[in-house]
Amino acid sequence: MRAVILLSGGLDSATALAIARSESRECLALSIIYGQRHEIELAAAKRVAAAIGVAEHVIYPLDLRVFGASALTDDIAVPKDAVGAAGIPVTYVPARNTIFLSLALGYAEARRAEEIWLGVNAVDYSGYPDCRPEFIEAFQQVILRGTRSGVEVGQPRIVVPLIRMSKAEIIRRGTALGVDYALTHSCYDPDAAGRACGHCDSCLLRRKGFEEAGVGDPTVYSKR
Amino acid sequence: MRAVILLSGGLDSATALAIARSESRECLALSIIYGQRHEIELAAAKRVAAAIGVAEHVIYPLDLRVFGASALTDDIAVPKDAVGAAGIPVTYVPARNTIFLSLALGYAEARRAEEIWLGVNAVDYSGYPDCRPEFIEAFQQVILRGTRSGVEVGQPRIVVPLIRMSKAEIIRRGTALGVDYALTHSCYDPDAAGRACGHCDSCLLRRKGFEEAGVGDPTVYSKR
Repeated sequence: MRAVILLSGGLDSATALAIARSESRECLALSIIYGQRHEIELAAAKRVAAAIGVAEHVIYPLDLRVFGASALTDDIAVPKDAVGAAGIPVTYVPARNTIFLSLALGYAEARRAEEIWLGVNAVDYSGYPDCRPEFIEAFQQVILRGTRSGVEVGQPRIVVPLIRMSKAEIIRRGTALGVDYALTHSCYDPDAAGRACGHCDSCLLRRKGFEEAGVGDPTVYSKR
Repeated sequence: MRAVILLSGGLDSATALAIARSESRECLALSIIYGQRHEIELAAAKRVAAAIGVAEHVIYPLDLRVFGASALTDDIAVPKDAVGAAGIPVTYVPARNTIFLSLALGYAEARRAEEIWLGVNAVDYSGYPDCRPEFIEAFQQVILRGTRSGVEVGQPRIVVPLIRMSKAEIIRRGTALGVDYALTHSCYDPDAAGRACGHCDSCLLRRKGFEEAGVGDPTVYSKR
């Protein structure tokens, strides 16, 4: 079975790819590169794709800075040590997963893929609305009503294997499948050498996940 | 009230813009330029935006040829004199309006626009699934469940003023609002000078619309 998979180079999408491969999917990876950390994320996505194995890898540069309004695309400071703060954080990027899924959908339809895999998670996450099951279900309806393949054959189907797993469960699952997390990059605010800050939401969730999983954390943190 | 409007440079989106302006919307126009006819469509969108009036105009180049699989993005021949043929035509672009709406959504959220206007039409149209009311309703649900502004304030709302109008009704409405249709471009297969072919789905629907509306057709057709 053929599947398009959104691959950011982070821990979650790497694990999702490993699960897809373990379930014999032919994987077409799509990396949408946007915002401030193009080079670091792109390098991680390429390492992960090469290590786990994909049938092809499309790198799609997307300029979301045209629209602005997020700490991940603008020059707004990334919040530190703030996981669990109320509300949706400033690192929310307007409509990000809607845009990413729609591009994955175009790719899947063009290549007749039967599934779209996405490593979103609604347990140990930053509170973004576009990581929740109700968003995924709504987007599935868009596919069924608004695309040729959806109307004619009821596909592609969105697969979100991690959505109800804790970060520790994700790390244990990936480790069992042989994922080398040293290849992945999660930090929202790395230093010039690409080292993780250790204090943004993404670093905190990742750190806590390795601790709870009882798996050694291979992340190289900045000394800042 | 602020509205993002998708502006292709065609007859429908020009009319939608004129209606939005007549209803006192502050319009942020978004032209997503893709595929084979960049220059002609971009020039038409710029003419229309300048003539009808927008607060700003973002030109967004999007490379859909990476994914392929449509006569509008690949080197597949555009069908001629085939309106009403069974099924979804080869000019269907995978997930096009889903991708366009998702980018408009990112723009609307970033700029706090309360509406997204879209000139889709499900009467005199080519049969694309992503022009139908059920698609629009599904995408509205994605906004309400998957974006910060949707979850928090129930916006932006998608507005589709033309969706149940015939092409003749659209042309009469736009003419009453002073739209100069000579500025617009609809043809899927123009010649090198930008003249319309007169025989693709889009030309046939446009031609018939002017005839039925009893309005002179200002389109310059190629002599081919």
